[in-house]
Amino acid sequence: MYEWNEIALNLAKDIEREIMPLFGTKKAGEFIGFSPSGDKTKFVDKIAEDIVLEYLKPLGVNIISEEIGSIDTGSEYSVIVDPIDGSFNFIHGIPIFGFSFAVFKEKKPVYSMLYEFIPKNVYEGIPGEGAYLNGDRIRVKTLNEKSISISFYTRRRGAKLVEKVRRTRVLGAIAIELGYLARGSLDGVVDIRNYVRPTDIAAGYIIAKEAGAIITDDSGKEIRFDLSASEKLNIIAVNDKRLLKLILEEI
Amino acid sequence: MYEWNEIALNLAKDIEREIMPLFGTKKAGEFIGFSPSGDKTKFVDKIAEDIVLEYLKPLGVNIISEEIGSIDTGSEYSVIVDPIDGSFNFIHGIPIFGFSFAVFKEKKPVYSMLYEFIPKNVYEGIPGEGAYLNGDRIRVKTLNEKSISISFYTRRRGAKLVEKVRRTRVLGAIAIELGYLARGSLDGVVDIRNYVRPTDIAAGYIIAKEAGAIITDDSGKEIRFDLSASEKLNIIAVNDKRLLKLILEEI
Repeated sequence: MYEWNEIALNLAKDIEREIMPLFGTKKAGEFIGFSPSGDKTKFVDKIAEDIVLEYLKPLGVNIISEEIGSIDTGSEYSVIVDPIDGSFNFIHGIPIFGFSFAVFKEKKPVYSMLYEFIPKNVYEGIPGEGAYLNGDRIRVKTLNEKSISISFYTRRRGAKLVEKVRRTRVLGAIAIELGYLARGSLDGVVDIRNYVRPTDIAAGYIIAKEAGAIITDDSGKEIRFDLSASEKLNIIAVNDKRLLKLILEEI
Repeated sequence: MYEWNEIALNLAKDIEREIMPLFGTKKAGEFIGFSPSGDKTKFVDKIAEDIVLEYLKPLGVNIISEEIGSIDTGSEYSVIVDPIDGSFNFIHGIPIFGFSFAVFKEKKPVYSMLYEFIPKNVYEGIPGEGAYLNGDRIRVKTLNEKSISISFYTRRRGAKLVEKVRRTRVLGAIAIELGYLARGSLDGVVDIRNYVRPTDIAAGYIIAKEAGAIITDDSGKEIRFDLSASEKLNIIAVNDKRLLKLILEEI
């Protein structure tokens, strides 16, 4: 049996030590090459991903990650990682970015962690047990229909939704935003650009779900995703089915 | 002659010491009363504003601030302050918020500072001299028309603009976002909700301007604002007139 929480935390701390001196620097953003999914790989992503590989390869598990794609070892365990969720923010000195780590046994989630580097917050999701922030149980907040705050990513579709809620955010780190939903800071996280990948959301999905969130695709069906670095998804994650209804009506 | 940089930094550090233990707590968000402009005052806003008054009242200057409105002493100096820009973020544990401080002599800007509490960044704008981040000169970045990143606040108006740029953000702390523009992290900051107040933007305006930004209202005319806590404004702040043109065409 793997101690996933220890593995994830050690990995997060090692990445933190290596990358934080590069926060907000030109060096962090230097172009290194292309990822298998066609994104530009930046210097800081490469550094973080090398650390991930160094940790996880000796474990013999399958690895799915943003910059490398998939390594299939035939193990029953798959670890799906985004070493730096929000790397634009990181490179540009904007303090919202994190490490996203989710473990599946066969196709079932068994553990997930988000590490928010700057406030040093550890979010964990343990399927069937609950979601935690720095060891304390967290839950989504109770919806107040007069004061709804959501993260909302769109390319025009459903733009009127902005008028139906009190407050929108576009923070640029979807995994962390799912953590904010889980801890009750936001009522929802919506990305309907057909843009996010399983690597971006796997950990946040488990944590938000364990905190009581409803998580669907853009038609209101429970979201499904492969353990892949390339599939593109829409996601609606909310604290209440009334908010889901409101969002589906607008988009 | 006042040492505005010392005054601002001491004030920022005192606020930091008092408020940071409340970051992301329920206590921070407790409702205390209404500001003169009709906004709800939260516990953390009150604490921060009391420190501002304690510092600035003995100086005998005019004070304009979010929660108290205006104190007119007849001084030639006016200090326009937002003790916590981004208080929703603060209360909800989202690490983007800051202290905004601008000084005017008669109606002319003489000094401004933004303090970003979590990364502990000090942005300064000295009219006619330049803009600085932690003492180093900063400039807006050179526009790359294929990779434009802006903060964009709207209630539907101009929603198509999202499709014309590479990346949008809504970080929820407009003063700090103007700091990001000044340091070259974003290409523009646009808020066309007729929502922001002089207290929100005065310091960021001076810093971005000194870093080379073009700052207009929503018709493309140079922005003008009173030293007030209640006037509502639209703002377009960009690093290049081609981006200004693109934005004006869309909104």
